Amino acid sequence: MYLPEPIVNLIDGFQRLPGIGAKTAQRLAFTILKMDDEDVADFAQALIQVKRDLKICTVCQNISDQDICDICQDKSRDTSIICVIQETKDLIAMERTREFNGLYHVLGGAISPIEGIGPEQLKIPSLLERLSDEKVKELILATNPNMEGEATAMYLSRLVKPFGIKVTRIAHGLPVGGDLEYADEVTLTKALEGRREV
Amino acid sequence: MYLPEPIVNLIDGFQRLPGIGAKTAQRLAFTILKMDDEDVADFAQALIQVKRDLKICTVCQNISDQDICDICQDKSRDTSIICVIQETKDLIAMERTREFNGLYHVLGGAISPIEGIGPEQLKIPSLLERLSDEKVKELILATNPNMEGEATAMYLSRLVKPFGIKVTRIAHGLPVGGDLEYADEVTLTKALEGRREV
Repeated sequence: MYLPEPIVNLIDGFQRLPGIGAKTAQRLAFTILKMDDEDVADFAQALIQVKRDLKICTVCQNISDQDICDICQDKSRDTSIICVIQETKDLIAMERTREFNGLYHVLGGAISPIEGIGPEQLKIPSLLERLSDEKVKELILATNPNMEGEATAMYLSRLVKPFGIKVTRIAHGLPVGGDLEYADEVTLTKALEGRREV
Repeated sequence: MYLPEPIVNLIDGFQRLPGIGAKTAQRLAFTILKMDDEDVADFAQALIQVKRDLKICTVCQNISDQDICDICQDKSRDTSIICVIQETKDLIAMERTREFNGLYHVLGGAISPIEGIGPEQLKIPSLLERLSDEKVKELILATNPNMEGEATAMYLSRLVKPFGIKVTRIAHGLPVGGDLEYADEVTLTKALEGRREV
């Protein structure tokens, strides 16, 4: 295929991103070509800055532009509850609810023998350190509701029990706005098991 | 939503691209965060270079890293046929067939009264110049098979007729691998009209 090198390089760059195939990469590259010089420069700058300026919070392993992230530094947050999640994007999802005012701990994944990820690849030592140091009263296990997430939650709950800390797991059940008719059996079973008096 | 500024800027950057919403932009930004420093630097560089190094070919209005594009400079190509297309991406599609060995002319769009694009916004003067200067024997009108493309083809064919040049339009019909059953009436009518002896 005939194309000048600069645009081939840009198409290549886009194609390395997940979910972007050859056609989309080409469309995006041509969009860049038509955009303002300044907007493109800003975008290129944002790419470089994200790699240069972001660090991992030394306390909760969240991404941050400082050594300790804004959440860990926030005096108004309840330091007695730690919510354990797999990735930073899960933290964003939790923050979006505006219902949780405790701290977080980002594991960096979940136990998955198939992918060769064991507990030693996760940020578990720093979590245990926090549990012994701080006045933590509750640990919420908010790993994903799939096999890997459940295994990780199970593993952590056994590991943390000796600390005498309350360990909870987020509820499974029907998603709000969902249809009973279309719910799978496992979810419906979990929803039944988790029923509460009203 | 809580997030450090560098990543917010990057998410914003991705979101300005077509077909990329908030969720996808966030996913892409987090992918960048996990990529090698070098790969990200290359991508940022590609963005900047595409804006800095690419020009419009002074002959055919195709994008190029030189004043005259590789196709127009290629001595092995047939200079007696010019294929008129709307955009550079249509040129790429044509080149992909490996069936066309003539030259191109990129109009930069199609006549569209709704979008306020008239013939004067298209690269028609430079096309007419080429037709009078060069030994062009055939002009293939390969604008899109929709209303705007047809209107542009019609306009051009009337404009070029006085030059005494053969003007052709790419065929309409059933796409290869398509189903007669699912073809729309207009396409089927065109396919019937364009039938050829076998």
